[in-house]
Amino acid sequence: MLKKIQKGSLVETAIESLRHAIETEQWLVGDKLPVESDLSEALGVSRNTVREAVRVLAHVGMLETRQGDGTYVRATRDAGETLKRIARTQLTDQLEVRIMLETEAAKLAAQRRTEQDLRSMTMALDARGKADANLEARIHHDEAFHHALVAASHNSALAELYDYFSHAITQTIERTENDADLPEPSQEDHELLLAAVRRQDSVKAEKLAQNLLAPSLKALRK
Amino acid sequence: MLKKIQKGSLVETAIESLRHAIETEQWLVGDKLPVESDLSEALGVSRNTVREAVRVLAHVGMLETRQGDGTYVRATRDAGETLKRIARTQLTDQLEVRIMLETEAAKLAAQRRTEQDLRSMTMALDARGKADANLEARIHHDEAFHHALVAASHNSALAELYDYFSHAITQTIERTENDADLPEPSQEDHELLLAAVRRQDSVKAEKLAQNLLAPSLKALRK
Repeated sequence: MLKKIQKGSLVETAIESLRHAIETEQWLVGDKLPVESDLSEALGVSRNTVREAVRVLAHVGMLETRQGDGTYVRATRDAGETLKRIARTQLTDQLEVRIMLETEAAKLAAQRRTEQDLRSMTMALDARGKADANLEARIHHDEAFHHALVAASHNSALAELYDYFSHAITQTIERTENDADLPEPSQEDHELLLAAVRRQDSVKAEKLAQNLLAPSLKALRK
Repeated sequence: MLKKIQKGSLVETAIESLRHAIETEQWLVGDKLPVESDLSEALGVSRNTVREAVRVLAHVGMLETRQGDGTYVRATRDAGETLKRIARTQLTDQLEVRIMLETEAAKLAAQRRTEQDLRSMTMALDARGKADANLEARIHHDEAFHHALVAASHNSALAELYDYFSHAITQTIERTENDADLPEPSQEDHELLLAAVRRQDSVKAEKLAQNLLAPSLKALRK
């Protein structure tokens, strides 16, 4: 048991050391890392531990291992660490970011939506309305509507961020059982947003999207 | 050599399988994973490989290993994967997201900035102006100004995202050598933004922040 704990923390320590060296630009993007045996000696850990640490940092996009060549610095930021830090921020901060993403998506969707986008949004919203008292179905179709709206922004970076944040927030709320008093936006609020996107009125779409979750943010702040 | 390649791809395959099972909710958040030996059998890989895959997914916040207990599902999304996917999106999509983050930050900063925030922004901006023809110094102080602005939003989730995106974009631009024709916002544009934040005029601050990088986005679209 003890040995395992130690091994785990050794890998974490090796990750920390490598990340620190990259974040503080001791190695720059594009630089090749020293060979495994030199890293092992410099960090005072086994080559196996170095290999595991490198694998983790490669997985989060900070390093890149080129087979038969070596390991290179790919980025100065650790994506995994960034989103873990975000998960530790206040729920109100996360919800504020989600509202920002949804508002921007609505604005862009009004400018860029295709006929197919409108069909996806309409189908999801109609299903949401019909789900009525079936909470699980209503949540499912509500999520489908919001994803279709974000997809209609035709910005993939925005869509990825939205997907991550909407999940993170749902999970934080479930974990903290904080949702008891969170108001649910009405079917009508959603209909009006879809209508604005259909009419390509981006100013109105932006405003309606912003108002959709504003009561939830206000309730959480209390 | 061959052995190493195989080992690496086995861990990646194990990561993929576990991630897929969690994303498709075969295990839910809060569920305890089967013990290492059972996972090893189910995936057809060694216990060592399972352990490495679990470590990677724990690092990105998807799993959580509790010493002396077991491994639990912590989130249905892999943060590392999310940001790697974002890094693969178009540069214009990424810049559009960065402008959104900066615009939201400017709006919130105008509402929430403290005297200390104003001092940090002013100091950085004055240094930017004095840096003049020294490009490296100008970039350094410009970054300091933007970070101080985002910090003044007092939203930690927003600040983390901004930090990640501003780095990712700089690196993408450096990698693609795409910056030759990117217009640089003037010292005056920055002064006006700071003035709006100081006056707590959030509508104006929002608009000025949005306009700051709009010419870059337009140039990139060409």
